[in-house]
Amino acid sequence: MFESATFEHRLDKAAFKALEPSLREDLLNAQFALIEAKRRSLIVLIHGPDGAGKGAVLNRLYSWLDVRKVQTLTFEMPCAEEDRPPMWKYWRELPPFGQIGVMLGSWYHAPLCKRALGTMGRADFMASLDEMERFESMLHAEGVSLLKIWLYLDGDEARRRLKSLSKGDYQRPIVREWAEVEGAAARKRLHLASEEAARATSTEIAPWHVVPAADTEYCDAMVGSLLLEKLRAMAAEPEPAPLPLPPNPTHVPSLLPPFSILSTLDMSRSLQEAEYDRELAQAQSRITRLTNAPAFARSGLVIAFEGSDAAGKSSTIMRLRRALDPRRFRVHPIAAPTDEERARPYLWRFWRHIPAHGRTAIFDRSWYGRVLVERVEGLCGPDDWGRAYGEINDFEAQLTRAGYVVVKFWLAISQEEQARRFEEREKIAYKRFKLTPEDWRNREKWPLYEAAVTEMVDRTSTREAPWTLVEAEDKHFARVKVLKTVADRLEAALGG
Amino acid sequence: MFESATFEHRLDKAAFKALEPSLREDLLNAQFALIEAKRRSLIVLIHGPDGAGKGAVLNRLYSWLDVRKVQTLTFEMPCAEEDRPPMWKYWRELPPFGQIGVMLGSWYHAPLCKRALGTMGRADFMASLDEMERFESMLHAEGVSLLKIWLYLDGDEARRRLKSLSKGDYQRPIVREWAEVEGAAARKRLHLASEEAARATSTEIAPWHVVPAADTEYCDAMVGSLLLEKLRAMAAEPEPAPLPLPPNPTHVPSLLPPFSILSTLDMSRSLQEAEYDRELAQAQSRITRLTNAPAFARSGLVIAFEGSDAAGKSSTIMRLRRALDPRRFRVHPIAAPTDEERARPYLWRFWRHIPAHGRTAIFDRSWYGRVLVERVEGLCGPDDWGRAYGEINDFEAQLTRAGYVVVKFWLAISQEEQARRFEEREKIAYKRFKLTPEDWRNREKWPLYEAAVTEMVDRTSTREAPWTLVEAEDKHFARVKVLKTVADRLEAALGG
Repeated sequence: MFESATFEHRLDKAAFKALEPSLREDLLNAQFALIEAKRRSLIVLIHGPDGAGKGAVLNRLYSWLDVRKVQTLTFEMPCAEEDRPPMWKYWRELPPFGQIGVMLGSWYHAPLCKRALGTMGRADFMASLDEMERFESMLHAEGVSLLKIWLYLDGDEARRRLKSLSKGDYQRPIVREWAEVEGAAARKRLHLASEEAARATSTEIAPWHVVPAADTEYCDAMVGSLLLEKLRAMAAEPEPAPLPLPPNPTHVPSLLPPFSILSTLDMSRSLQEAEYDRELAQAQSRITRLTNAPAFARSGLVIAFEGSDAAGKSSTIMRLRRALDPRRFRVHPIAAPTDEERARPYLWRFWRHIPAHGRTAIFDRSWYGRVLVERVEGLCGPDDWGRAYGEINDFEAQLTRAGYVVVKFWLAISQEEQARRFEEREKIAYKRFKLTPEDWRNREKWPLYEAAVTEMVDRTSTREAPWTLVEAEDKHFARVKVLKTVADRLEAALGG
Repeated sequence: MFESATFEHRLDKAAFKALEPSLREDLLNAQFALIEAKRRSLIVLIHGPDGAGKGAVLNRLYSWLDVRKVQTLTFEMPCAEEDRPPMWKYWRELPPFGQIGVMLGSWYHAPLCKRALGTMGRADFMASLDEMERFESMLHAEGVSLLKIWLYLDGDEARRRLKSLSKGDYQRPIVREWAEVEGAAARKRLHLASEEAARATSTEIAPWHVVPAADTEYCDAMVGSLLLEKLRAMAAEPEPAPLPLPPNPTHVPSLLPPFSILSTLDMSRSLQEAEYDRELAQAQSRITRLTNAPAFARSGLVIAFEGSDAAGKSSTIMRLRRALDPRRFRVHPIAAPTDEERARPYLWRFWRHIPAHGRTAIFDRSWYGRVLVERVEGLCGPDDWGRAYGEINDFEAQLTRAGYVVVKFWLAISQEEQARRFEEREKIAYKRFKLTPEDWRNREKWPLYEAAVTEMVDRTSTREAPWTLVEAEDKHFARVKVLKTVADRLEAALGG
């Protein structure tokens, strides 16, 4: 992977000066096309050993581009534990469509660092590379293009440079990303792991470009050309096709008779008042105790509520709310996205609300909107919701791996019960606001929703983040089932 | 202040049940008016001793309102040092217009806590109350209404309640905001300080309402009525008057001949190439050293760049950039606000970018837009920019008090030099993007901008955050002056 970079690559200063003005003009024009289209963003990953000149390349890009639409994306790089899942910080910094982000210290940093220090085995390392690849492919599909640049510099040369930079009259800031990797053996492991990573993650949509960095002019000109090429390729991509019409709600075609996972539920289950009061209070008390336990400080709780309209999500969340310290949880009702949210991949608006460890986030409707309402209403295409299952599984896996307990509820009621509740809402003044003409219209699409729910549960109920289907015909039963499930899951995760 | 609350206030359960449905309906209707108008937001501050039932009141509000437009605003309450200025966390959580935020642990908490613990003297305490008052008055003027509720409960009764809550079969979450205030003497001081605070900050726009909290039904009904009254008063406020026409650019009326602070600058100052290279490198080196010094980790750097179009802001920022570790600073170009920003007070979009300690934020155009472009172009009314000077001084005082070094530059060029640079931009391909027809048009308003700059400097150049006017006719001179000023200010703050 790095072989050809070890040969000498030079560009003399005069040649560089000659080509710079037109490169600059072309880059600006290409950047303006990106800004005006506002359809995609670009992240330029700059990797390389300390001393390879990452900071200098960054500054060169800033001198060439319209800086108002460029952001530096950099991260302090603890190998230690973090306050939130490791990928959170990258999500948080995603530039909006139309902008360029230049990233130092990307998602490759932590696995490479751990591998070099010997704290991560080869299998885990390869698994994490695989995960990076899926993450990048999701970004690409969601409008974020990637240009991955590996500045190559011989190890001895890099160390020599570092030394000369840190002495002398005029100090310069030095980007030291690999300060933790000390000693010849660790550096050797870092080199090997880097090569392996570059090879394994050079995909069609986002290959690594190895740029020899010994000669500044050559390096800068090369990075500039790669960026120009990438921007032009992005501009040349065809406009996205118009969304196909949403499916006909009256007919769900299938060779087999349609199966609905919801039909397996026993909707007659109910709870008497006294039993309800006792069991609810017990479950609340367990949740209070568990979320105040010391072990919860290293965990966290993420709950997604989905269900038919009027299935009782709000009133159930109310009961959950009473079990939690108001300073340590947030409820996020998911409505139409803001413009800041619309300018980024759809999972961004959920990642931004992922709580720190020791805290709880309750989503009233969630990222599953992608494979439910957006699918059924035709708000995104089949390609989009089709790949969302895998993306969502990856998302939740990142949460559970970071110690969070992920609990997902589908609250199910029958069509008849829904009609009854809608009518009740029409009658009671302070419930009227909960009903819109939209709600009545949505009932026509009931079979489509059932099919979507069935596929969703099939494809996203995982061992770490299983779905809980809740028979919600009786509100008492449903609330107790939800709160008990939360308590059970917490207990299982925190060990009682 | 609390006297009348010490008498018994009761509402029996039956009476409460009778009034609840209509209160609920009225509250919802009033809330919908708020949501639809999207003109203002409301923050409900709930204060009171631990055990007074703050959490219970919160839950009651959630059971009455449309919860999708209500947020709980709560804060972990360290009396210790924080990562950012103390007010940052409140700014970050400001709900957008149309929404209600219910706040536990408000900006009153830290001063009360410190006063109770005896770590803050009376003068400082009164000064901080004064500051709260100005903060609230700014919020009010910027569209954020406040309802301040003080739950009153006798100290002994509160402690008794706390005890009974934390034992028994069913644990409930307890909001303990004052756990640090231990012992009878400290609690007594807290009570006295609270009374003083409630009295001092009961302003016309945001008075404190003391609600006796011993009887749950009385307390909840009272809070509900206060909220209803407040929402109705907000709805009854007249629509804001249309903005007056911006002033005529050709004539700035004044009894005296117009004075421009910019006319005092010696625009002939310049630097030769060799001197420039040496002095720039020296200044950069000093900045590198100072921002890497251990003392900087408890400080931070906030730089605002303002100036005429084409005065050289970007190219100066570029030179500053090279002196800073790219992982520890951000440049924020200020363009049109996003919809999330438009739905909050204008300072919100700057507060959200205030860096953690040990980091640098560079604003390419800044909060001074309020008293410059917004004033001159008539984008806000005279009342708005008129009060902005004081609001900005308060904002910057909060930064400097939290240890940040605040540096503000006005880059000044003559009208002739600007014309020359505009023409140059038209000629050089890769500079053309920096020029728009708007830029030429803005030149007509030159005298208005001079007047606005003069008033801005007069009113916002403070000892802690002084303005630096930069003679930018010669780019070399300007860049060196800017970088030297940054280095000098850092040196003065960090002690070399």
